[in-house]
Amino acid sequence: MNQQIQTNALVSEPVTLINAFRMPPDEAERFLRAWKNNARVAAEQPGFIRARLHHCLDDNAEVRFINVVEFASGEALDKATAHPDFVASVRRLLDDPNLHVTAQPAVFRVAVDLHPGNEL
Amino acid sequence: MNQQIQTNALVSEPVTLINAFRMPPDEAERFLRAWKNNARVAAEQPGFIRARLHHCLDDNAEVRFINVVEFASGEALDKATAHPDFVASVRRLLDDPNLHVTAQPAVFRVAVDLHPGNEL
Repeated sequence: MNQQIQTNALVSEPVTLINAFRMPPDEAERFLRAWKNNARVAAEQPGFIRARLHHCLDDNAEVRFINVVEFASGEALDKATAHPDFVASVRRLLDDPNLHVTAQPAVFRVAVDLHPGNEL
Repeated sequence: MNQQIQTNALVSEPVTLINAFRMPPDEAERFLRAWKNNARVAAEQPGFIRARLHHCLDDNAEVRFINVVEFASGEALDKATAHPDFVASVRRLLDDPNLHVTAQPAVFRVAVDLHPGNEL
């Protein structure tokens, strides 16, 4: 799993980590269990706001899951992903011989947040 | 722009369209304006819940923007993206000679929605 998260610890505003996961179709359930372990640890860290894991409707899609995780700041995100408990949880996922997952993470800021009736 | 959205009109539960956009760095502002036009039209359609456009913190990233759009059902999403006003707005973006955008859309359901204090 390529876990090169490029973020900027100087970003004091909220950030969103978006991670696209590819894996063989029959590993989806096992991945989901491992992801939940990672998410539990992340959710305990300061600055955690919300995490959503999206499962592709198309079973033949290359990207099977996309993770959208909000943190209060880039610094909080960096600290959370560097926390030993989180690193250990990710390591268990990586070392699982029955999981063949590649991840494509990147960090974003929200440019537009549109609700019905909002003006743009 | 490759706009092959594969969704399932039979999905009666909420769906999330996630779309990754690639473009030359100097086209980001022009793209943002064009995207807002598309989003305005989408937000007027029945079943629209929320759209967020994320801008990558890393200016050298290949994926510059990721769009996360929630609709009340797969059917509502299909109808919205087939609406003539939306099709025309997307067409204007595609036909803009000053924009060189590729899109990678897919449709998802939320598998996990985690807030602080939630149990998994």
